[in-house]
Amino acid sequence: MFNKVLIIGCGLLGSSVLRGIYSKNLSKTILVYEKSKKNISKIKKIKPNIKIIKKLDNHIGDVDLVIICTHMSEYKKIIHKLNKNLKSKCLITDVGSTKINVIKLKNKFLSKRLYWISSHPIAGSEVSGPEHGSKNLFLNKWCVIIKEKRKVSKKIDLLKKFWKKLGSKVILMDANNHDKIFSITSHLPHLIAYNLIKTAQDSQKIQRKNLVKFSAGGLRDFSRIAASNEIMWRDIFFSNNSIIQAINLFTRNLNSFKKNIQSKNNKKLLSKLVNSKKVRKQIVLLKQDVAKPDFGRE
Amino acid sequence: MFNKVLIIGCGLLGSSVLRGIYSKNLSKTILVYEKSKKNISKIKKIKPNIKIIKKLDNHIGDVDLVIICTHMSEYKKIIHKLNKNLKSKCLITDVGSTKINVIKLKNKFLSKRLYWISSHPIAGSEVSGPEHGSKNLFLNKWCVIIKEKRKVSKKIDLLKKFWKKLGSKVILMDANNHDKIFSITSHLPHLIAYNLIKTAQDSQKIQRKNLVKFSAGGLRDFSRIAASNEIMWRDIFFSNNSIIQAINLFTRNLNSFKKNIQSKNNKKLLSKLVNSKKVRKQIVLLKQDVAKPDFGRE
Repeated sequence: MFNKVLIIGCGLLGSSVLRGIYSKNLSKTILVYEKSKKNISKIKKIKPNIKIIKKLDNHIGDVDLVIICTHMSEYKKIIHKLNKNLKSKCLITDVGSTKINVIKLKNKFLSKRLYWISSHPIAGSEVSGPEHGSKNLFLNKWCVIIKEKRKVSKKIDLLKKFWKKLGSKVILMDANNHDKIFSITSHLPHLIAYNLIKTAQDSQKIQRKNLVKFSAGGLRDFSRIAASNEIMWRDIFFSNNSIIQAINLFTRNLNSFKKNIQSKNNKKLLSKLVNSKKVRKQIVLLKQDVAKPDFGRE
Repeated sequence: MFNKVLIIGCGLLGSSVLRGIYSKNLSKTILVYEKSKKNISKIKKIKPNIKIIKKLDNHIGDVDLVIICTHMSEYKKIIHKLNKNLKSKCLITDVGSTKINVIKLKNKFLSKRLYWISSHPIAGSEVSGPEHGSKNLFLNKWCVIIKEKRKVSKKIDLLKKFWKKLGSKVILMDANNHDKIFSITSHLPHLIAYNLIKTAQDSQKIQRKNLVKFSAGGLRDFSRIAASNEIMWRDIFFSNNSIIQAINLFTRNLNSFKKNIQSKNNKKLLSKLVNSKKVRKQIVLLKQDVAKPDFGRE
C-alpha cells in the first residue's frame, strides 16, 4: 500500500498503528520518530528491526504517509519540520481528539505542497505507552476522517482504505460537527470524571476520613477514566470550545436534578432515572458496549 | 447458625443472600417473601424446594433472622407486619443504601420487643432481578453494620458473623458517617452518571444528531451506571440529605474547572488532572478495583 510510512510519536496510539501496519503488511518500510528513551526501548521489543529516528530531518524525504500520534500541543513544532523535509504531495494525518484547532493550525502553517487530512480513531484507554498498544486497538471502532471544503478525494480514499485495513469503521465529518459531538460523548464525560475525583479528594479532607476505601460503589469506575493521560486531556480541554457549552448544559441539568431532590418531586425524578435506561439500550444496540452486567472487576 | 431465616424481597440482593445461606448452610429453613410473579418463577429455579410466602402473617412467627432486601420505600409497610407477627427478640436487618432514614423509621415504628440492626453490603450492579444474583456477590466486599448508642453487642456479633460467612469484610459505622461517606463514593457518582446521560440526550435534541452512536469514548461507562434501578436510586436520592452538600461541592469544583479552561490556566488544570491519578492508585491498592486497563468491552 505504501513504500515508506512515518509514525511520529509512538505511545499507545502510535504503537498500535505501528503494529497494525506490520500485521497487515501495509508498508515496505516503517520509520518511527520518538523522543522518549523509555519508549524507544519498549518499541524495540515490538519488532527487532524497527527504524527509529531521533530527528525529523532529510531522512524523511521519501516518506509517502505520515501519521502524527503525539500530543496535539506538539503539532506546531512538527509542522515546521515536515514543511522543510517532506517531498511534495506527501499525505499527512493525525489522530488528535479535537479537530477545529488542528485544521486551523495546518491551514495556517502547513506548506501548500503537502496534504494533511485529519483523522480521529475513537480508540484508547486510560493507560499510555507503547507497551499497551495492540494491532487490534482499532478493530470495529469508529475512525472519523475530517472532510474539508477543498477536498482531495483521491487522498481521502487512500486514507479511508488505510484505516479500514487497520480494522476501523470510517466515517466522514466536518471539524465543527466532530468537535460538537465528541464534546458530549467523550470530552465532557472525562472532565466530569476528573471533577468527581477532585470532589472526592476534597471530601476526604473535609470529612477527615478514608473515603476511597469504600469506592467500590460507583467512584471506582470514574477513577479509572480520571487516570487518563494529563497532557492529552489538557490539550483536549484547551482546544475544544464546545466543552464550555457542554459544561453549562450539564450544570443546568444538575441544578434541576438537585431541585427535584430537594422538593421530593417523585414524578420528575423518576422520569429522569427511567429515561437514562433508553440511552443504555441504544448504546448496547449500536455495539458501543456489551450488555454483560458489571459486578466490580475482581 | 439459624433455625429459620426470612428474606423479604428477593431481587439481586435478596437472591444473593438466599444463595449464600444455602451454599454455607446457615439456616435449617429459609422463607422468601416476594410479591412479583415474574421474580417468583425465577426464584423457584434457584432451588426446587424454596418456601415462598405471599403474606407476612403468622407463618413468620418462629423466624430467628429477617433480612429486608426490598426498596427502602417499602420498609414502613413491612415494619407494621413484623411488629404484629415476629416473636420477641427476633433479629432484623436490612440492606438499604442510606442509613439515617432507616434508623429514624425503625426507632419510630418498630416494636421495642424486636432488634433491628441495619446493614449495608457494598455490592450490586446495574442489573436487577433474582436471575442475576450470586452466592459470591458479597465475597471480599465491605458490609457496613450500623452502630447505635443503645447497642446490643450479642446481636451485633451474630450479624457480623452472618455477613462474614457470606464472604463480606465487616465494618462498624454510625449512620451519620455512613451517609456522608457513601454520598461521595456512591450516591454522587450515580447522580452524576444519570445527569451526564440526560445531558447527552438533550444534546442529541439540540444538535439533531445521533451522538450515542459515538459513545465509546467515555459516555459508554457512564451509561452503564445510569442504567441502574430507578426505584432504588429515587429512594437513595430522596433519603440521603448529604447528597445536596455533595452536589454543591461538585458544582463549585466544576465551575473552577471551567474557569481554568476558559483562562487557559495550564498550571492549575494540569495539577487537577495529575492529582486524580493518585486516587486511582489508592483505589487499586485498596483492592476496590483491578489495575487492568480497559479498552472497551468487546
